[in-house]
Amino acid sequence: MTRVRLDLNISLDGYSPAPGDSADNPMGEDWGRVVEAYTATRTMQERVFGDTTGKGTTGVDDRYAARHFEGIGAEIMGAAMFGLHTYPDDPNWKGWWGETPPFGTPVYVLTHTAPRPSIPMNGGTTFHFREGSIRDVPAEATEAAAGQDVRVGGGIGTAREFLLAGLVDELHVAMAPIILGHGNRVWDDLRGLEDTHRVTSEVAESGVIHVTFAR
Amino acid sequence: MTRVRLDLNISLDGYSPAPGDSADNPMGEDWGRVVEAYTATRTMQERVFGDTTGKGTTGVDDRYAARHFEGIGAEIMGAAMFGLHTYPDDPNWKGWWGETPPFGTPVYVLTHTAPRPSIPMNGGTTFHFREGSIRDVPAEATEAAAGQDVRVGGGIGTAREFLLAGLVDELHVAMAPIILGHGNRVWDDLRGLEDTHRVTSEVAESGVIHVTFAR
Repeated sequence: MTRVRLDLNISLDGYSPAPGDSADNPMGEDWGRVVEAYTATRTMQERVFGDTTGKGTTGVDDRYAARHFEGIGAEIMGAAMFGLHTYPDDPNWKGWWGETPPFGTPVYVLTHTAPRPSIPMNGGTTFHFREGSIRDVPAEATEAAAGQDVRVGGGIGTAREFLLAGLVDELHVAMAPIILGHGNRVWDDLRGLEDTHRVTSEVAESGVIHVTFAR
Repeated sequence: MTRVRLDLNISLDGYSPAPGDSADNPMGEDWGRVVEAYTATRTMQERVFGDTTGKGTTGVDDRYAARHFEGIGAEIMGAAMFGLHTYPDDPNWKGWWGETPPFGTPVYVLTHTAPRPSIPMNGGTTFHFREGSIRDVPAEATEAAAGQDVRVGGGIGTAREFLLAGLVDELHVAMAPIILGHGNRVWDDLRGLEDTHRVTSEVAESGVIHVTFAR
């Protein structure tokens, strides 16, 4: 059965880093620190950075990184993650994921602006634009996933919308052992998540704490 | 060398439960859930509830519970934890820890009201009352501890005062795998604690995540 899955990288004090204001480092210094161990995995080195020389860690962090890509048949993301806000008035803008985005599946981009035609990309990715209730999109994505899982890709605002609506079957949180003190608060208004989801945790060699809430 | 140590029981979303408003359950329902696995340990059964029949869990949680009591030569606590606010005008009030408090060491009670004479109790506990800067008390407690460690007992307000002042050498946090959504925020203003303290974590059989920040 298709499950809606969500992976988050956060700090020990429950923050998803807010993007920085530096053009050199658009995701911000905190983001780099929170995802450091994840970025170092062999899976991420291969899948995101295209390094197929076998570099990268192969421990617990890598197991979760690999799981992130396994069995995904469709993706859902917010408009900002696609890059819709960068050139909102350019109908030919294809987002900032390049000609061959790393998804390889249908990707449903949530938008509050007028939907635009779908964009087929190389490598199996097709971007579809959907407005309206977030409750409708998982159903469509589930059908597109054809028995595989649906991933909510982000950003954190979209992720929290899905969590608060009770639409996430499996939440995996990689908590870096650092205290950020500010950013986007991940856990607000999620009291009792452990009542609907079973919680398991393990600590990676890197010190990252992996917590999974699974329905 | 004497170390100032602090143990906290918190939720995964970083809250120390606020006391409830029910007379039947003065610490509140959330408190019971956060400390549930800790209370179930053999050490806590023996040390706090006086059950010496060997009941209680003996896994990872119990190891941390035992560590809580090991090598402590003096204790520091807030006025509320002693019970000073219950009968503030009664000079004969000896706090709510009974005739034989579980500390067995000098206990320094921080107070903003006029200090009162020290109170010797059974079992090696003597309550001392100190006002003024929290920076002075660890020095006095360290001397009293005679080479053993000093424990900051609580409550959470006192604990955070010591953390924010950089006076804690070893912080152990037992994070229950539950989302409370409200209570006393533990991590605020502690950004960068990992720069001065080395972080290690492990997951107990109960699901509690034990995180230690050690200078």
